[in-house]
Amino acid sequence: MGDQQKLDNEFAFIRDVSSLFRNYRAGQTLVPVGDDAAVYSPGKGMGQVVTVDTMVEGVHFKRETMSCWQIGYKALAANLSDIAAMGGKPAYFIISIAIPQDWTYTELLDIYKGMQALADRFKVDLLGGDTVSTPDHLVITITAIGEVEEEVRLLRSQAQAGHVVFVTGPLGHAAAGLDLLLHGYTADREQKVWQLLLDAHQQPLPHVDQGRILARFAKAHTISLNDVSDGLASEANEIAAASGVDVVIRKEQLPVSDVLLSYARQRGVDPYTWVLGGGEDFVLVGTAQAEVVGRIRQAFRDQGFAFYPIGYTSEGTGRVWLETDKTKKCLAPAGYNHFRQKRD
Amino acid sequence: MGDQQKLDNEFAFIRDVSSLFRNYRAGQTLVPVGDDAAVYSPGKGMGQVVTVDTMVEGVHFKRETMSCWQIGYKALAANLSDIAAMGGKPAYFIISIAIPQDWTYTELLDIYKGMQALADRFKVDLLGGDTVSTPDHLVITITAIGEVEEEVRLLRSQAQAGHVVFVTGPLGHAAAGLDLLLHGYTADREQKVWQLLLDAHQQPLPHVDQGRILARFAKAHTISLNDVSDGLASEANEIAAASGVDVVIRKEQLPVSDVLLSYARQRGVDPYTWVLGGGEDFVLVGTAQAEVVGRIRQAFRDQGFAFYPIGYTSEGTGRVWLETDKTKKCLAPAGYNHFRQKRD
Repeated sequence: MGDQQKLDNEFAFIRDVSSLFRNYRAGQTLVPVGDDAAVYSPGKGMGQVVTVDTMVEGVHFKRETMSCWQIGYKALAANLSDIAAMGGKPAYFIISIAIPQDWTYTELLDIYKGMQALADRFKVDLLGGDTVSTPDHLVITITAIGEVEEEVRLLRSQAQAGHVVFVTGPLGHAAAGLDLLLHGYTADREQKVWQLLLDAHQQPLPHVDQGRILARFAKAHTISLNDVSDGLASEANEIAAASGVDVVIRKEQLPVSDVLLSYARQRGVDPYTWVLGGGEDFVLVGTAQAEVVGRIRQAFRDQGFAFYPIGYTSEGTGRVWLETDKTKKCLAPAGYNHFRQKRD
Repeated sequence: MGDQQKLDNEFAFIRDVSSLFRNYRAGQTLVPVGDDAAVYSPGKGMGQVVTVDTMVEGVHFKRETMSCWQIGYKALAANLSDIAAMGGKPAYFIISIAIPQDWTYTELLDIYKGMQALADRFKVDLLGGDTVSTPDHLVITITAIGEVEEEVRLLRSQAQAGHVVFVTGPLGHAAAGLDLLLHGYTADREQKVWQLLLDAHQQPLPHVDQGRILARFAKAHTISLNDVSDGLASEANEIAAASGVDVVIRKEQLPVSDVLLSYARQRGVDPYTWVLGGGEDFVLVGTAQAEVVGRIRQAFRDQGFAFYPIGYTSEGTGRVWLETDKTKKCLAPAGYNHFRQKRD
């Protein structure tokens, strides 16, 4: 279809979209897309992990800072990250999309191609969707289903005093990448100096494989886990509050990359604004019993994954502290409240 | 909260919403709402039936013709109807809602109360949700999950020549109800004469129990099945095309209620416009081997459900015919194409 062509036939569009996705789970997908509902056969002894995530044009993404491909990629990535945070193996996803008139056929198909890349990477099957029109802004909702061994619990409420706090990747990159896009450092972008930051914002890789390592250890050990969708401060506060312990983050142990430091210096910004408050890094943050951390770290290293101990937990009232050798200050959650920010 | 109060705290709202829903499946719901994702344990030997449905303000519903309670009720009903059409038992649902500024706290909570009524009726558990802001129109997406015995197939592609065509309830009521609302027959509405039509549009009961009866027979017999979301003509065409047989509908066998006839007469409308073309009746339409139809009918009667044979299938090329003793004319699909209607 031509580049500027509008979507005028829902059925042809759905056919073109469906042809993008491979059926990786033929043995389990009993009735694929195309009937009133899809039917799949769950794995023996596997709990079904279910999550939903919605992205609204103008609220969660702007066409100025994200390509169509990236919009689709990221919508699915956010869901797979939630499944990773439960230790699950992604298996299926379902798309709902509400489309306004100003999106072309090619743009819309590119959204699905972005999802396809991630579906191929993690071998998840598209189980269905709903394609509807809307008067205004594009809304994408993805529901993802994964599978996890029924005995595995990687909950945010499982932190205990004496745990080691860890993260599975660098922090603040996604927020710095968004800042970069909004402030248009195009010359530097062409030099690929900041590509790491842009990638973190535009096409983060969910830490599914890392979550699976943690699931293995969770069979015998108590591990708490969240994904860093709303920033480290918020996620750590969720763990602390749900578990009723204090989380102490050692500032000098936080993984702050040279690229981030260099970009923050250029922008005159305190890098810890992004490291602690920036959302959408989609790494995992959790706590584990001290005696198992060495083995977890080794397992991560064996597969080539980063693993950073960043602090400890202690008896407390569910608060988060940022500690240096000299200071200790309370770290409030800094998450995004969709409604307060818009209406105050 | 006050009646006109805006939603200004996403977290308090989510807490209030969550408290509406009971946990009917405690034995199977391993991790309820509240972590990165929910986890449930599937029933042994049960396929997982998955479907999604999106309703957009101004496209799928108008606040002038639906109360907030009814909007929520119907959003879930449409999903449960899809599960019914696969013979499934509804088990879980997940809500995503994108909220514009002009909806009050009370209105939004009423949407969830509408869902609650249906969740209680069919004992389904809320497994999660995403609550986000949007600049414009309300968008509700529900993903529902049901369970069906893995050997059961109630597909639209399973009609065979020599089957009896059936529906599980009256047709055209929802379309007549919408017509009534749009033409403001308020005096008559107060007399409750037309309540049946209004209910069919505003709060249809999905034919879950009827689907379960058909699932029982589907273990030994070939049955095709759809729910009538897009009107009988469209659904019958889907079955005919997917199965490669012709579907012949006997006009005089169609269940046309006295209420519908009376309202159509008053409006000067051919009632078959609604009976054949009107969507959202959410009854089931299917085909079954002639030798089993008597037993299915008896099983429906035993549980107090309607069951109407309305025609037969024959060798053909996947077309649908409307037949009287004297005439036979081809019946084209008359479904709603979201994009063609808006853009042509």
